[in-house]
Amino acid sequence: MAYRETAQVKARKAAQREALLRTAETLVREGGFAAMTMQTVADRAGVGVGTLYRYFDNKATLAAAVFAVATQREVDAVDRALAGGGDASARLERALRLFARRALAAPRLAWALIAEPVEPEVDAERLRYRAAYAALYQRVLDQGVAAGELPPQSTALAAAALVGAIAEALVGPLAAPLNDAGLADHLAAFCLRAVGVAGAASVAGSGDTESAP
Amino acid sequence: MAYRETAQVKARKAAQREALLRTAETLVREGGFAAMTMQTVADRAGVGVGTLYRYFDNKATLAAAVFAVATQREVDAVDRALAGGGDASARLERALRLFARRALAAPRLAWALIAEPVEPEVDAERLRYRAAYAALYQRVLDQGVAAGELPPQSTALAAAALVGAIAEALVGPLAAPLNDAGLADHLAAFCLRAVGVAGAASVAGSGDTESAP
Repeated sequence: MAYRETAQVKARKAAQREALLRTAETLVREGGFAAMTMQTVADRAGVGVGTLYRYFDNKATLAAAVFAVATQREVDAVDRALAGGGDASARLERALRLFARRALAAPRLAWALIAEPVEPEVDAERLRYRAAYAALYQRVLDQGVAAGELPPQSTALAAAALVGAIAEALVGPLAAPLNDAGLADHLAAFCLRAVGVAGAASVAGSGDTESAP
Repeated sequence: MAYRETAQVKARKAAQREALLRTAETLVREGGFAAMTMQTVADRAGVGVGTLYRYFDNKATLAAAVFAVATQREVDAVDRALAGGGDASARLERALRLFARRALAAPRLAWALIAEPVEPEVDAERLRYRAAYAALYQRVLDQGVAAGELPPQSTALAAAALVGAIAEALVGPLAAPLNDAGLADHLAAFCLRAVGVAGAASVAGSGDTESAP
C-alpha cells in the first residue's frame, strides 16, 4: 500500500514536471540553452535541485525535453498554416511567413532551437523535428505538383531543402542584432522560386530589396 | 638547454599531430564521430592514449579539429569551383554538383560533418563553416545580380538559405541506404530556381523526376 501511487499523487507529479519544463523554457527564452542548468532551473522554480533530478536525469535530458515541447508548438503552428484554405503556393507562403514571424518574435528561443551549439541529445531531436517539418512541406508540394500548380520535382528533396533554407536563413538575423526588414519577404521569395512558383521573383518586390538584410 | 625544443623535435611533433588527425578522420569516415573515441584513435594509430592526450585535450577537441580539417577541404573545393569560368549561374551549378558528388562519394563522413549529433564544440565549428560557405555563395550571387543575370534579391539571405538547403537536402540521402539517382540534378534545379535563374525549372528534366529520391 505504501508503494501505490494514488491518482492524486500522479497528477501532482505530472503538474510539477510540466511546471519545471515551463521554467526551463523560460530560461532558454532569456539566455539560450547556455543559461539553462539544473541549478538555475531549480533556483528559478523554487525547488531543490534534487527535486529536479527526480524528473530529469541530467541537463541534456532536460534540454531535449524543452526542445521537443517548444519545437512541437512550432510544428503545430506550421501544420495549421499549411492546412488552411488556398492553393499550395498560398498555403506554403503563409506557413513560411508565420514561421519567420514567430521566430523573430522570440529570437533568443528560436536561435537556441535552430542553431545553438548544444548536447548531442538536442541535436538528435533537431533531426527528428526537421523530418517532421519536411513531411508537412512535402505534403503541400505533392498537392501542388498533382494539381499542376508546381512543376514536376523531387518533392522529398525540395521539402528537406526548404527546411534547411528556412532555418539557415534565420540563423544570422536571429544571432545578430535584429534587422528583420524584409526578411520574411525575401525568405518567401527564395522558397517560392525554389519550388517553381511562377512569378515568385516578384514577391521580393513587395518588401525592400537591400542586399544585406 | 634541456627545455629548448629543437626544430627537429618540433617538426616531429607536428607530423605526429597530423598523423593522429588523419587516423581520427579515417575512423569518422568509417563510423561517424560515434566511432571516434580517444581510445579507438590511439589504438588505430598504434600509440598509447596518453600520447594522444598530449595533442588533444579531450574527445570534443579532437572531433572539432577533425571537423575543421575535413570541412575546410570541402570549402576549398567549392571555392575553386565557384572561381572557375562561366557566368554566375554556371559557376553556382558547378559548385552545387561538386559538393553533392563529393558528399555522396563519402556518405558516412559527409553525414558526420553535416548532421551527426555531436558535442557542442563541433556544433560551434558547424556554425563557423556554414558562414564560410555562405560568404562564398554570396560573392557569386552578388556578381550575378550586378551583371543583371540574377534578379535583385537579398543575396545575404539567399546565400545562407542555399547553405541550409544543400545541407538538409543531403541529410536524408546520406543517412538512408543511398539512392542518389538524380539527387544532384534535383538539388541544382531547386537552388538555381531559388536564386532566380531563368529557365532553371527545366534543369530537373535532365535527371529523373521521381518524387521521392
